[in-house]
Amino acid sequence: MTKLPPELIREALKKNKVKIENYKGIEYLRFVDDFKDVPRGTALFKSFTLWGYPHIGRIFQLSTGLKEQFTHPFFVEEKVDGYNTRIFLYDDQILALSRGGYVCPFTTERVEDFINLKFFEDHPNLVLCAEVAGPENPYVDEHPSYIKEDVQFFVFDIMEKDSQRFLPYREKEKLIEKYGLPSVERYGLFSVEDVDKLKGLMKRLNEEGREGVVMKEDSERDKRVKYVTLYSSLKDIEITSVNLLGLPPDYFTNRLLRLALFMEEEGIVADQELFLKVGKAFLEGLLKAIEMSKKDGRVYRTFRCRFKTRENALLFIESIKHASSQVQVLQRRLEKEGNYWVLEFDRVYLNMTGLLGHLLAGGSIFD
Amino acid sequence: MTKLPPELIREALKKNKVKIENYKGIEYLRFVDDFKDVPRGTALFKSFTLWGYPHIGRIFQLSTGLKEQFTHPFFVEEKVDGYNTRIFLYDDQILALSRGGYVCPFTTERVEDFINLKFFEDHPNLVLCAEVAGPENPYVDEHPSYIKEDVQFFVFDIMEKDSQRFLPYREKEKLIEKYGLPSVERYGLFSVEDVDKLKGLMKRLNEEGREGVVMKEDSERDKRVKYVTLYSSLKDIEITSVNLLGLPPDYFTNRLLRLALFMEEEGIVADQELFLKVGKAFLEGLLKAIEMSKKDGRVYRTFRCRFKTRENALLFIESIKHASSQVQVLQRRLEKEGNYWVLEFDRVYLNMTGLLGHLLAGGSIFD
Repeated sequence: MTKLPPELIREALKKNKVKIENYKGIEYLRFVDDFKDVPRGTALFKSFTLWGYPHIGRIFQLSTGLKEQFTHPFFVEEKVDGYNTRIFLYDDQILALSRGGYVCPFTTERVEDFINLKFFEDHPNLVLCAEVAGPENPYVDEHPSYIKEDVQFFVFDIMEKDSQRFLPYREKEKLIEKYGLPSVERYGLFSVEDVDKLKGLMKRLNEEGREGVVMKEDSERDKRVKYVTLYSSLKDIEITSVNLLGLPPDYFTNRLLRLALFMEEEGIVADQELFLKVGKAFLEGLLKAIEMSKKDGRVYRTFRCRFKTRENALLFIESIKHASSQVQVLQRRLEKEGNYWVLEFDRVYLNMTGLLGHLLAGGSIFD
Repeated sequence: MTKLPPELIREALKKNKVKIENYKGIEYLRFVDDFKDVPRGTALFKSFTLWGYPHIGRIFQLSTGLKEQFTHPFFVEEKVDGYNTRIFLYDDQILALSRGGYVCPFTTERVEDFINLKFFEDHPNLVLCAEVAGPENPYVDEHPSYIKEDVQFFVFDIMEKDSQRFLPYREKEKLIEKYGLPSVERYGLFSVEDVDKLKGLMKRLNEEGREGVVMKEDSERDKRVKYVTLYSSLKDIEITSVNLLGLPPDYFTNRLLRLALFMEEEGIVADQELFLKVGKAFLEGLLKAIEMSKKDGRVYRTFRCRFKTRENALLFIESIKHASSQVQVLQRRLEKEGNYWVLEFDRVYLNMTGLLGHLLAGGSIFD
């Protein structure tokens, strides 16, 4: 049990590292940044704390990386390309937090469609960590190609309230089994000598258009490391180049580095097709952004997701409106389609919109 | 005549915006950053001040840009890809400053090979602003393809000591003519209606592998704007991707934007060959960096330049050793070849060296 000392919370509040939030009358505190040893996304409810999901280190090469990172065998799981949520019981409601520790009206509402709620009846103190992925998710531009519509949930960890630790891997597997929880694909136990076996797995995941793997050491320290496919690095560039100027400065250089080190390890040299793909990934998004700027006067991406109630859709869109000063959220439509309220909205990338508008009008910049 | 007020200099000194330098016994002050209205590179000698060369705005499209930027016809000149220097008389010596306001032993020594010194005898108060370019320059990785060896000087502006203004264009031309000074190519006077004519010129410069143009309004305000070729943006990426992580974060996104807006204006759509070139420009440098890291344990670029005296070569290499905390300078060799002392040195890119070494050894990063 790890409780946060009140003086730490007071200090974090004073430094604006903590925000007071309210979800349908439930007040809670949310760490908006890492602060001392408390990770971003940690959420404090009246009678318990949900620790933020920890950062996981990334290796760029397997051959040296496994040896360097692990002292014991490790479990390998699929890294699904979606967004991270923590699902838990609050009084008699199920709630779902975003990675940032925000109670998400969309995710919260959809839990019951994918998760056997008996799990929380039997284990009110446990928290499911899951990836939500699919073409109709409201946060992430990318999704695994095998999800054709809506979203799906994939449990990858189970933790306890008031604790930073995860349940041991085998206990997690038992609970997933027992309650029929949807899980990320689990590829079993590997050792640091299994470089070739893991490369073989990565090759398959790459061909299937999957993001990569998370490796979890079978040891007390439960060390975790991630490693992604070439497909994923390329896809990241392709999807986000429309917002080239709105992303963190090292976003693209980091992906290029992943790509190049993957090529180096696999002995892929001077592959014309790959060069073509990289150039295309960068330029097509940018050209699309220019086209949008000329046609609509703004650069944006349209998101679509399904709600059960109109109320939750409106609550959701309100909640994301102030999430970023660099993004403007514009509702396109909210209409009943079959059993769902379908919400469509644009995220307008203000940096791109402003700069492209300026340059296309003949403006100059001092660079 | 513009003299800097002593209180401004004192304030700049206190804020470390000014450094005290010494070149062979000549003491001077140098603005290492823009400070209030004083541009970086402004140098204060005992009896006069040399103002820093001003920043020039860049447009990304001609069709709208010319109309937006200019109210009068403008002169068009080649923008040569090299480094900027200001050449002037100090007592009875000719000195040459780098853009940053540093007396450069290399440039200073080579002035007499390219510039008719009679100019300074007749006009001791004038300052020649020139680009120094070529494969054997010690600062810039790129150079125009028409310079096959060593360096060349290209005068593009003339200013007075203690003044921020340039001589009127026609006066500059007369002096260039009279003293046979080497000049950037001058393409004459254009009007804002001459978009197609200018596009034609850009097309030729692009095919010849030149950087672009600087446009100087024929008016009292002497407004300047620059515009570069697609070739130049691509070349920038190609040359610098070996140091992908050591450059300013917007370096690459800016070049991509130039490229995409150039394509858009010229109606170049989905050109496979260009995609290939862009991908190659990014990846080949990175792959080369990885190769260097594995082979030599460091990522670097080798520079070579010619000196007349061993003393100046040593003075030069000392002077650049502390120019950047992200770059380590390592001398490779200094040997007499014919009339010159040939200096070869490496600039070791410490960010790339450190990160690639870490990742190739299997290290992880939290990104």
